Amino acid sequence: MSTLKVFTDLQTSPELIDWLRESIAPHELLLPGKTGASVLADVPTDPLMQEADIVLGQPRVDAVLSSQNLKWLQVSTAGFTRYDTQDFRAAVKDRGIPVTNSSHVYDDACAEHVFAFMLANARQLPRGLKTRCANGAPEWLELRRDSRLLQGQSLLIVGYGAIAERLIELLAPFRMKITAMRRTRRGDEKVPIVTPDEVSAALGEADHVINILPDNAESLRWFNAERFAQMKQGAIFHNIGRGTTVNQEALAEALQSGRLGAAWLDVTDPEPLPDDHVLWTLENCYITPHTAGGQFDEARVLIRHFIENFARYQAGEKLVNQVM
Amino acid sequence: MSTLKVFTDLQTSPELIDWLRESIAPHELLLPGKTGASVLADVPTDPLMQEADIVLGQPRVDAVLSSQNLKWLQVSTAGFTRYDTQDFRAAVKDRGIPVTNSSHVYDDACAEHVFAFMLANARQLPRGLKTRCANGAPEWLELRRDSRLLQGQSLLIVGYGAIAERLIELLAPFRMKITAMRRTRRGDEKVPIVTPDEVSAALGEADHVINILPDNAESLRWFNAERFAQMKQGAIFHNIGRGTTVNQEALAEALQSGRLGAAWLDVTDPEPLPDDHVLWTLENCYITPHTAGGQFDEARVLIRHFIENFARYQAGEKLVNQVM
Repeated sequence: MSTLKVFTDLQTSPELIDWLRESIAPHELLLPGKTGASVLADVPTDPLMQEADIVLGQPRVDAVLSSQNLKWLQVSTAGFTRYDTQDFRAAVKDRGIPVTNSSHVYDDACAEHVFAFMLANARQLPRGLKTRCANGAPEWLELRRDSRLLQGQSLLIVGYGAIAERLIELLAPFRMKITAMRRTRRGDEKVPIVTPDEVSAALGEADHVINILPDNAESLRWFNAERFAQMKQGAIFHNIGRGTTVNQEALAEALQSGRLGAAWLDVTDPEPLPDDHVLWTLENCYITPHTAGGQFDEARVLIRHFIENFARYQAGEKLVNQVM
Repeated sequence: MSTLKVFTDLQTSPELIDWLRESIAPHELLLPGKTGASVLADVPTDPLMQEADIVLGQPRVDAVLSSQNLKWLQVSTAGFTRYDTQDFRAAVKDRGIPVTNSSHVYDDACAEHVFAFMLANARQLPRGLKTRCANGAPEWLELRRDSRLLQGQSLLIVGYGAIAERLIELLAPFRMKITAMRRTRRGDEKVPIVTPDEVSAALGEADHVINILPDNAESLRWFNAERFAQMKQGAIFHNIGRGTTVNQEALAEALQSGRLGAAWLDVTDPEPLPDDHVLWTLENCYITPHTAGGQFDEARVLIRHFIENFARYQAGEKLVNQVM
């Protein structure tokens, strides 16, 4: 195999870039002149990308489509909305370019983040952390009474993939009653599956509903007023997928009416929400700023994921996290 | 067996009191004229208690010692500090009065509460919940970088009992490196045990240290400046035991110096801390107001625990949670 040119727009330390360079040698690493501010921002195309055989990062769609030598694209996030169009899929299929994402890098962190949401809610942490009261005071009795055990509660996961599978493993000792929604039942899932046609009943039975839907035409505002109305009174809604999959006005109404007990959101639409958005004003709405996938040494894990896939690529093996 | 008189000072609903009465019939339930404000408050002695064969609740020490007919005391908490003296132990031993506590009722809730502390810390929830920022902003990058995986971290549990055992079960899928300290190694523990003599090295290796020490003469201010200095730089300290087991000035210093990364406390000394206490002012000190054992339907679980023990008592079987 001749020398491959690997282009990355990853923002990280010189040490990690050196590690990447050494790990792929004798193949060549190309770096852009100027990096973007975020892995999620739409960075301008670097001319060097056009020469690359392999790209790791977040290239512009037009840059991918106009590239001359591209043989493989690894997206450095779990989400890949910008590439998920019929045109793009047709183009990469036509040119035989596999597209992989980095979902493995984020599975553990996302699963732990939503687990933290569920436990913080069960144990009433935000309220407890701002309550100063004596043992026996009325607010103390109320806080203790509102605290719950997560063990034995029921959970519906909407969007069954690697994050859901990891979460199910982590939750095992809690003996929760877990169901998941998936477009098509494959038969190898770790929990009972409902399809979208069958989801109403499942929505009505869950103490916790976790949204991990990806962002696409089908999922747009999937959680709407009708779906919230189908949920169990007092259910807790979590979103670690994408903000676009939720009708936020309907969510706010469900939180205000008491239909939902609380919402824990790591994603919104847009991010961040405008300062005057109603969701900021609701006491039972908890928002973290899209940090569910974050982890100490995230860049190292991301690069290791690429290096491992690069070895598979060179060996002609099946790539991990191939999405197109 | 003749009719037994069961006295309880439990504060709960008439329905639950009726359930208790029916469950122990034909034995007799005695209730005080006026209940205390809290299960932890030192309620005045009720004259009816003096007639009781069995007491469920939080009777005064002198009332227990002066009781004429007492044959069994079940304390309605996990802690039983007020009774844990040589004199009291000698007196109940002498009179053949078994003393049980209600630790089983609180094991699950306490284990979940400290699990919530650990995950909230790993995922930086308190900070995330008050951060509004755009993807890619400096504070966003910093927050993601400071977020951790709990998986694979190390944990030292100081005080090995039922709560520790439950926590170890719940944490199993996180594959943490767990060690526990116990006065005497018994050999049937679920994790490697260190004795107090051997604890220094273990303190120096743990990412998380959980304090579940009971309140007694030996544990008074057990966590002092020397012990905090032995901990790993940046370690997270959790306390769901008793506030008296910690030297709070030393804790504040360790938090201020950065020796400890954060402290998560459900118990303090006193409770609540005075409004001008330094621990309220530290950004890396998180305090819930002694709610770790709290749970929806706590009183029902407490009464069920008593009813089950009452059946064992009548059958002459070994009581659960016997502490004296």
